[in-house]
Amino acid sequence: MPAESSATTTPAVSMDSIVALAKRRGFIFQSSEIYGGFNGFFDYGPLGSELKKNIRDCWWNDMVRRREDVVGIETSVIMHPKVWEASGHVAGFSDPLVDCKVSKQRFRADQLFFSPVTVDGAIVGYVSALESEDTTAKLQAAAETFKRKKAIVGTLAPVTPKDFTEATSDQIPLIPSPGTGEPGSLTEARAFNMMFQTNVGAMTDGSSVAYLRPETAQGMFVDFKNVWDTGRVKLPFGIAQIGKSFRNEITPRNFIFRSREFEQMEMEYFIHEDADWSQCHQEWIEWCRQWLISVGLPASKLSLYAHKKEKLAFYSKGTTDIMFEYPFGVQELWGIAARGNYDLGQHALASGKPQEVFDETSKKKFVPHVIEPAVGVDRILLAVLCAGYAEEDVTDDKGNVEKRTVLRLSPRIAPVKVAVLPLLKNKEALVGRARALYKKLQRRYAVFFDDSGNIGKRYRRQDEIGTPWCVTIDFETIEQPGDTFTLRERDSMAQRRITEVELFALLEEHVY
Amino acid sequence: MPAESSATTTPAVSMDSIVALAKRRGFIFQSSEIYGGFNGFFDYGPLGSELKKNIRDCWWNDMVRRREDVVGIETSVIMHPKVWEASGHVAGFSDPLVDCKVSKQRFRADQLFFSPVTVDGAIVGYVSALESEDTTAKLQAAAETFKRKKAIVGTLAPVTPKDFTEATSDQIPLIPSPGTGEPGSLTEARAFNMMFQTNVGAMTDGSSVAYLRPETAQGMFVDFKNVWDTGRVKLPFGIAQIGKSFRNEITPRNFIFRSREFEQMEMEYFIHEDADWSQCHQEWIEWCRQWLISVGLPASKLSLYAHKKEKLAFYSKGTTDIMFEYPFGVQELWGIAARGNYDLGQHALASGKPQEVFDETSKKKFVPHVIEPAVGVDRILLAVLCAGYAEEDVTDDKGNVEKRTVLRLSPRIAPVKVAVLPLLKNKEALVGRARALYKKLQRRYAVFFDDSGNIGKRYRRQDEIGTPWCVTIDFETIEQPGDTFTLRERDSMAQRRITEVELFALLEEHVY
Repeated sequence: MPAESSATTTPAVSMDSIVALAKRRGFIFQSSEIYGGFNGFFDYGPLGSELKKNIRDCWWNDMVRRREDVVGIETSVIMHPKVWEASGHVAGFSDPLVDCKVSKQRFRADQLFFSPVTVDGAIVGYVSALESEDTTAKLQAAAETFKRKKAIVGTLAPVTPKDFTEATSDQIPLIPSPGTGEPGSLTEARAFNMMFQTNVGAMTDGSSVAYLRPETAQGMFVDFKNVWDTGRVKLPFGIAQIGKSFRNEITPRNFIFRSREFEQMEMEYFIHEDADWSQCHQEWIEWCRQWLISVGLPASKLSLYAHKKEKLAFYSKGTTDIMFEYPFGVQELWGIAARGNYDLGQHALASGKPQEVFDETSKKKFVPHVIEPAVGVDRILLAVLCAGYAEEDVTDDKGNVEKRTVLRLSPRIAPVKVAVLPLLKNKEALVGRARALYKKLQRRYAVFFDDSGNIGKRYRRQDEIGTPWCVTIDFETIEQPGDTFTLRERDSMAQRRITEVELFALLEEHVY
Repeated sequence: MPAESSATTTPAVSMDSIVALAKRRGFIFQSSEIYGGFNGFFDYGPLGSELKKNIRDCWWNDMVRRREDVVGIETSVIMHPKVWEASGHVAGFSDPLVDCKVSKQRFRADQLFFSPVTVDGAIVGYVSALESEDTTAKLQAAAETFKRKKAIVGTLAPVTPKDFTEATSDQIPLIPSPGTGEPGSLTEARAFNMMFQTNVGAMTDGSSVAYLRPETAQGMFVDFKNVWDTGRVKLPFGIAQIGKSFRNEITPRNFIFRSREFEQMEMEYFIHEDADWSQCHQEWIEWCRQWLISVGLPASKLSLYAHKKEKLAFYSKGTTDIMFEYPFGVQELWGIAARGNYDLGQHALASGKPQEVFDETSKKKFVPHVIEPAVGVDRILLAVLCAGYAEEDVTDDKGNVEKRTVLRLSPRIAPVKVAVLPLLKNKEALVGRARALYKKLQRRYAVFFDDSGNIGKRYRRQDEIGTPWCVTIDFETIEQPGDTFTLRERDSMAQRRITEVELFALLEEHVY
């Protein structure tokens, strides 16, 4: 087989490269693209749907099947509307929105910043800017322009940025709309509920209003008693679920990072009211971090962010996010929250059905507390694409330098585990042996058969979709004793001879 | 181990037994039960979610990973509203509804039957009845009551049932409402669209209306070109998808058979316009039938129903349903439709983007035709519960007769594959060996460890949840050479000695 070696990786990965690869190779498409796309919705193509399924399956296997203290459930997307009243989502799950009456544009008030323009200590007007990486600099520049245009003389003070939710009624008419550049057209901020609303049944009046769930978690709380009564569980134990959630985001962004329809993997771990919640919280943070590493994210790109005590909801004891270094910045990947017994308590109150369990030791009833690790499938998928993507200069054994794009996906989640490649298409003995191996692998693994084009090109194609191993059936396979194939490894590009038994052992070790 | 034998199965399975088992053992719960339930929505508990996942995984493995001509995708639930205009769902996906202005009840017009009451050849009034197994008998009884109450003399003619969609404007005011028993309050039938509607974005006016998909199929059509361009496919080939769909059914019924939120497994198999669609259709019908048998449905409960030509949509070339004998009757399980090139054609028209492919042989472009096998996960799940459920009288070796409930699920989909049971809880050697085996099995399979209660009771518990095999670690395991366990088989209740290697081989053979 042609040898490749001495790869030099280009360090910076841009979102543009990721998005382009995702489209080009059938990982991710815009939803309804032939109709111009639909903002905040995405489709997963042949490779993307396999990658997504693998992420889900790894999580389910590790979280549910391989643990004795966690069971799974699947609850409906549309639940009784009282669920969302009790959980606080009807009243509180909202973004502050501000309208421009002239341009008809809408802005998230907490992403619209303003500042007084202060000259010689007196406020002479206001400037505004939408949130970006350099909001303050933009406001400062706008203030300078304002002063110059209005021909105001004096010393301009540095801007003091605030977001629009902090604007007073007196200030609002003076703040320029980003839609028009002029003041006078912005409304006060109002709460905009992010749940998608619909109507169930034949009526379309208030009595039939229902919501698409904005999180899967409430399913675990509402079904807690049913699981407790039927699931042969005892504290501490968890209920896990994977499923779609929907949020009517005003500004979906960063590709699949913040979309309107997404898939969550959430687990509620119920503990005794007297249990050491802090230790349990720490253990779950570490479990989640290790799990991310197990599906191929480098530890160096992961960090922890503990939410500030004063920013937490009153019932929350602590929340730590595992952050990931995306090309667009360090952002939340997995949130692990200690929520006390707030949710079960709320549902007990609203439904009139006690959500207590009986403690055999203390002989008293109590409402269990909960630790909640909650992560999005799409965010993990984006993270593994970003972490795995690389462009390299590869030098072959003749000294030719060529570029290769490689997607370093963990074998656990790679859409294709092995590509089976007969060296030549027109040699029946090679193709026959290759197809026999392919069929055998296919019973257990997602594999790919490719007999078209030169072998180097076929390796490149598999590199780009993240296939960890290529197996080439060559003349040595059929002519020499031992029935060995060339195994070519994606990351190192190293090649070695391997038997069928060794190949299956390799997969057994790395794939599950 | 205590021996069991000579089982006598009680033949009739009632829906009540199935629903009771589903609740009692954590397969299926009502959604939002603590809030009184939510009509048409269901949750899957610890065992139900495993069973559902296994059905999905078997289908995906067989349909996508083990075939070379089918790729998978996952499209969004909320797509561009123009998708549903082009597909015809906005205009046509409706049930006829009739209101009772007095009782405020609503009925599906095609499920509300009426008949004139004819005495001595003259129509003296009307009677009505909601559709049931004996609609005609009910109408006849109502006609007799009507004649008696009105004290009409003469010979009553047999009723002539028609459904409300056939009622004329003259008849409607004379037909009694099932809500009041009196005529005069029913409205004319009107079309009620079954898609759930919502609004996307900050506006809630007409411009932001969107729908929850009523089927996954349109995702495959809308993404056809993207898959064609990136997926390395050539005709004939299929695009498969598994995902939630939503229909605002007026009368959800028969447990999870007809619900408002459900999960579909659909595949669009694209073929050449000149291909023999009829043969391809037949092949897919047989593939689907065999697949149902492979997950444990008995062939004797399956039948085929070819839709009548005159009832098909104009573009449809033929639809055959695989029917299953549920306790509530023979009903549709899997529909296999030959849809011509209607859907791609409609999207080409509506989007202005040609949906053609180029034929290398004939050197011309054409729009591919399609065969569509579409099945619901929930219906298959219900079918395997119904087919697998049995109550038996079991006689043990002492001659005692005991009842056992057994769920004969195929090992491919059973929520638990193996239960590992140490004979005694307080013998460390037994428990230790059992846990070692359990841990080893757990890497690959969903398994259950149970050390509480007598071994017969533990077998019964596993029988009831459909576990195909129990492995008991007994004194022979630890005291005699060979390290063998007692393998107890669910259906035959036969017991035999088995080694660890044999156990893994058994699973490898039957589970995938």
